[in-house]
Amino acid sequence: MVARVKTRERIVQQSLKLFNQQGERNVSTNHIAASMEMSPGNLYYHFANKQAIVAILFDRYEAQVYGFLQRPAGRLPNLADKRTYLHAVMSVMWDYRFLYRDLEHLLESDAVLAARYRVFSKQCLAQGRLIYAGFVEAGILSMNNSQIEALTLNVWVILTSWVRHLCTTLDQPAILSEQVIKRGVYQILMLQSGHVCPQWREAMAGVCEEFHVPTDDAPVGRN
Amino acid sequence: MVARVKTRERIVQQSLKLFNQQGERNVSTNHIAASMEMSPGNLYYHFANKQAIVAILFDRYEAQVYGFLQRPAGRLPNLADKRTYLHAVMSVMWDYRFLYRDLEHLLESDAVLAARYRVFSKQCLAQGRLIYAGFVEAGILSMNNSQIEALTLNVWVILTSWVRHLCTTLDQPAILSEQVIKRGVYQILMLQSGHVCPQWREAMAGVCEEFHVPTDDAPVGRN
Repeated sequence: MVARVKTRERIVQQSLKLFNQQGERNVSTNHIAASMEMSPGNLYYHFANKQAIVAILFDRYEAQVYGFLQRPAGRLPNLADKRTYLHAVMSVMWDYRFLYRDLEHLLESDAVLAARYRVFSKQCLAQGRLIYAGFVEAGILSMNNSQIEALTLNVWVILTSWVRHLCTTLDQPAILSEQVIKRGVYQILMLQSGHVCPQWREAMAGVCEEFHVPTDDAPVGRN
Repeated sequence: MVARVKTRERIVQQSLKLFNQQGERNVSTNHIAASMEMSPGNLYYHFANKQAIVAILFDRYEAQVYGFLQRPAGRLPNLADKRTYLHAVMSVMWDYRFLYRDLEHLLESDAVLAARYRVFSKQCLAQGRLIYAGFVEAGILSMNNSQIEALTLNVWVILTSWVRHLCTTLDQPAILSEQVIKRGVYQILMLQSGHVCPQWREAMAGVCEEFHVPTDDAPVGRN
């Protein structure tokens, strides 16, 4: 029993690794089995198909996101929380980058996952709005409700599109590094840069500096 | 000769229509020919393959974008220009929505188009930065160079990802309306909302109102 559980977990881990490296579309269950020196039959004993593996990975991704996408209990959020959110976002984007890369394809071919994803996105937007509202209450950001709503939706679109943006504009899109993912987190942070209250601007500039990664598209000729 | 030119143009128009309605992936040259009551052979006389049609459509898309993505000549941009940019962006997103929907797929299967697209994206970012710098010079927006750079990149990611975002989160993703595209333009406009100079806030709020479209995900329980 222990060995069986371990095998199942090893398949999940190996699938995640291969999906992230090569893209989910380019990895079949046969590839996964072969890379583990396992017979396809043995893999099918644990998982009926690739969708079942993706579903497990999505469970974990979702749990990881819900785990950090919360307002601090019983107090207002502070700048240390901001850093914690950003690092958590960076980790999840990196750990599950295959999801962002192939999202539309994954959802198109799996109606159950597509329905789950729609619920997930609404939940994330709702939590995101609550968190930003917390930063407003804490006097760190200054925004009205329309601004909070639009900002949260922009954060969501950038986060879920960043990996694909890289894939269409980088000269070597196959090579996704943690650094280029980090730039995505910087972009999220900069979304709020016009809304930072004056007394927090210097401290927030420090956070921006921590997350800054230059793009290969260095601006020239600007005054 | 006139008839031949006309046929070629009709094929381009019909392809754009079908690509936008059904997604480029789901439309073959045979579909295009059949929908025009034309033999596949006749279509091949004009276009060697679907890529050649996509290339022509990309030419037009690119020309349309370069046409409006310019600073006004000899003067600073004003609020009327802002509206003009937003309307132009909305038109091009709507007219060529198939490009945004299937972009990664299109680029993956066409190395020439992928290389053109990388150049195009860099040009658009450079022009975008110049235009935002113009609004800063005009005293309408207040941003430093880092903020201009990050904002322009965020605008680009949102614009090029908006259609796909809709496809993954709408309950009926097949139905893309001009209204949901317009919401994307509103999101772009809201990106700068924290950077508007005090004396322009009221006027800019009017522009935001013009472009506002509610999402189906109405926020509840916010204070």
